[in-house]
Amino acid sequence: MNELRVIPVRGLPEIAAGDDVAALIAATVALEEGDVVVVAQKVVSKSEGRVVRLEDAEPSARARELAGDEDARKIEWILREAARVVRARPPLIVAETRQGFICASAGVDASNAPAEGTLVLLPVDPDASAHRLRARLRELAGADVAVIVSDSFGRPWRIGTTDVAIGAAGLRVLRDLRGTRDRRGYELRSTQIAVADELAGAAELVMGKAEGIPAAVIRGADVAGAGSARELVIPEERDLFR
Amino acid sequence: MNELRVIPVRGLPEIAAGDDVAALIAATVALEEGDVVVVAQKVVSKSEGRVVRLEDAEPSARARELAGDEDARKIEWILREAARVVRARPPLIVAETRQGFICASAGVDASNAPAEGTLVLLPVDPDASAHRLRARLRELAGADVAVIVSDSFGRPWRIGTTDVAIGAAGLRVLRDLRGTRDRRGYELRSTQIAVADELAGAAELVMGKAEGIPAAVIRGADVAGAGSARELVIPEERDLFR
Repeated sequence: MNELRVIPVRGLPEIAAGDDVAALIAATVALEEGDVVVVAQKVVSKSEGRVVRLEDAEPSARARELAGDEDARKIEWILREAARVVRARPPLIVAETRQGFICASAGVDASNAPAEGTLVLLPVDPDASAHRLRARLRELAGADVAVIVSDSFGRPWRIGTTDVAIGAAGLRVLRDLRGTRDRRGYELRSTQIAVADELAGAAELVMGKAEGIPAAVIRGADVAGAGSARELVIPEERDLFR
Repeated sequence: MNELRVIPVRGLPEIAAGDDVAALIAATVALEEGDVVVVAQKVVSKSEGRVVRLEDAEPSARARELAGDEDARKIEWILREAARVVRARPPLIVAETRQGFICASAGVDASNAPAEGTLVLLPVDPDASAHRLRARLRELAGADVAVIVSDSFGRPWRIGTTDVAIGAAGLRVLRDLRGTRDRRGYELRSTQIAVADELAGAAELVMGKAEGIPAAVIRGADVAGAGSARELVIPEERDLFR
């Protein structure tokens, strides 16, 4: 394993629908072959126009029931983005999103939204977003890089969020140690490491929700390959916690 | 936010009870003020003599019932380390440990154990372990560093483990954004970031369970302060998933 560098991408402007996020990143950092470019979901969603207005949702009875002190129109948007509600304690909702992720508010969030009264939704297909960014970065920077679209997820039992990969392109998202042996020869039977989630978390350390640093570059990780963030989701039948 | 470097600590020998892990690390890396030294739980436990023999456990009826194809003596050790079993599907057990963490096998593991027929348990008090390592590193390296004791935890809903902090000393484990505002002025109401877990995960990226790299140094993180890994555990009454 080599030393890693985790480099913040500074100075990006506020992102709006149609903006070329890859071009803004490539103009800021000299990308190198094998770099992992981690981009916060929020800017990807905004560039893809995944922004809605509170006033465009008429709260259902269920949304009003789950809202507690929260704006029931926001809860309505959450329910529209949710395939299924996993846990609810008004106004907190943990839901399975249409993309298959289980997270707070089905990924719907008002922070860093473009205007008062708007909400940002997850990209429709974050793996596809990562693939598009990767293709565009290769075109602009001439380097074959990997791309992760990251989001901040809470975890059962532990306080605080860590950033995880909700979209990926050009990298192996899991390091599979099954069948390898430790120094004593003991076979590691069940170990898979969620490398893409650890990369997303490492990138978060140099990002800033308040400072407007929505991307980072990780250099030195030997992860080039093919992979999808969908590989990081446990299929329902194998999950002890659904 | 500054650029981070994540530096593997190579060439450590196999660790046994009584070994001075801090001295081995300080002899390998020139530590600097503000560095975060992440040490894998396995070497901390081994240096503290937290190794037991399968043959020293007489399986209870419950251990035999939960064992499935697994050695019931290992399950017995897991039950002894567990304050409570959270989920079980033989031979998989998710338990709350005596230290308060919820993880697979109550942290009991045979991989990288010192000998055939032995198991490594979690440190009795991983925060205290981190404090001891930090004090010793200051003595040896003359630098005020932070220490994280890390372990690989699985997560509900997501495939693969990520490394998290089970012990901490000399750092703020959470970055609390509650009350800060985004660029548009929207107040971040509930955001806390589990920085210590993201640091542990970043360190894992340069460690190797199979290659014998059980520690890493993270340089450039501005996290010095006071904190405990216990702050990362959700109190039972606030937890939606217990």
